[in-house]
Amino acid sequence: MKIAVVKNILEANDRIAQENRALFDENGVTVMNLMSSPGAGKTSLLEKTIQALKGDLTLGVIEGDIQSSKDAERIARMDIPVVQINTGGACHLDGNMIRDTFGEFNFEELDLLVVENVGNLVCPAEFKVGEDFKAMILSVTEGEDKPAKYPLMFHESSVLLINKTDLLPYVDCTVEGIREEALKINPHLVIFEISCRTGDGLEAWYDWLKQEVRARKKA
Amino acid sequence: MKIAVVKNILEANDRIAQENRALFDENGVTVMNLMSSPGAGKTSLLEKTIQALKGDLTLGVIEGDIQSSKDAERIARMDIPVVQINTGGACHLDGNMIRDTFGEFNFEELDLLVVENVGNLVCPAEFKVGEDFKAMILSVTEGEDKPAKYPLMFHESSVLLINKTDLLPYVDCTVEGIREEALKINPHLVIFEISCRTGDGLEAWYDWLKQEVRARKKA
Repeated sequence: MKIAVVKNILEANDRIAQENRALFDENGVTVMNLMSSPGAGKTSLLEKTIQALKGDLTLGVIEGDIQSSKDAERIARMDIPVVQINTGGACHLDGNMIRDTFGEFNFEELDLLVVENVGNLVCPAEFKVGEDFKAMILSVTEGEDKPAKYPLMFHESSVLLINKTDLLPYVDCTVEGIREEALKINPHLVIFEISCRTGDGLEAWYDWLKQEVRARKKA
Repeated sequence: MKIAVVKNILEANDRIAQENRALFDENGVTVMNLMSSPGAGKTSLLEKTIQALKGDLTLGVIEGDIQSSKDAERIARMDIPVVQINTGGACHLDGNMIRDTFGEFNFEELDLLVVENVGNLVCPAEFKVGEDFKAMILSVTEGEDKPAKYPLMFHESSVLLINKTDLLPYVDCTVEGIREEALKINPHLVIFEISCRTGDGLEAWYDWLKQEVRARKKA
């Protein structure tokens, strides 16, 4: 009985996500659904990425949080359109919440829309929002066992950004260990090793993202 | 409609959690529900705490994970009874899952049962399992904005352990900042500053926990 309810919710969400995706495709907007545990560095990565790309691309951001508008305030300082969704208690964004923001964007002018999901390594992986691809961040402080313990998130993501590499000397965790465990769950993951604090490794990420956006613009 | 379903699930869970709690009370077992983001240090804290307390108290552990038995294996090495719950996809433990483990413990002999919840700063706060109190860990790598962004977890917890204080020199976060933000949400929080890596601050935590267990034993 409980399973049936959950299945209906997921199916209804998939339908709305598909409609969102069709609208994004019509307008040539690339949509990235960005996910991680709380505090892994989603907003910091976004700030760096916006700074690097906003000369070349037209960007927009949707911020998902249970409460507060702290993240949207950080992004708004960078002078690009941003909408804050407060989910109340909900632990993830869904297709309908994204649709509710559509009045706030001019999709014809947008190249890349980033959806920063609620900080949670579990539930956001189950709910499509209409994205072209999912990207996830794992910080090295979280440990090498996370892919085995939260497999769906690693399975659904196309990109894994291993963040806070500047802290590697101080934690019992290696990038090699994370890579190995993550690729066991999803051998197709594109992996970047980055530090939002020092900037290490971010150029390769910017280049990859720009290529993704341009490929969709042409298609 | 969706809200009604969720409310029914929570009410049914509260009833089961109450029954669990009654059984624990009858047997004088203190039950702690331990929660945090993935990788904040729940299992590390448990290992240290078991090591320090197992001469004085009889302990048991329930490990909650979506998948894998890595944490239960770590605890089993310490030679105390441990049960692994794999939730499948579920992002939290509930009263029923805890009840399903009852055959594995001898509650008459137990002083303290620790329930290590699924790594998630959102959903576990909504579901009682029959605990006497909730304790949460926030690591300093997660940042000062977390209480404002995940208020229910901080509101429901009696204890906040600020972990990984050894990393403070390398992150943009202060213990004072976390304290201030956390106490805004819940002025009654008992706060410990700890490093499971160096052992700093753990003695005060052990003393507090032993007192809590003994107070319930006498009552």
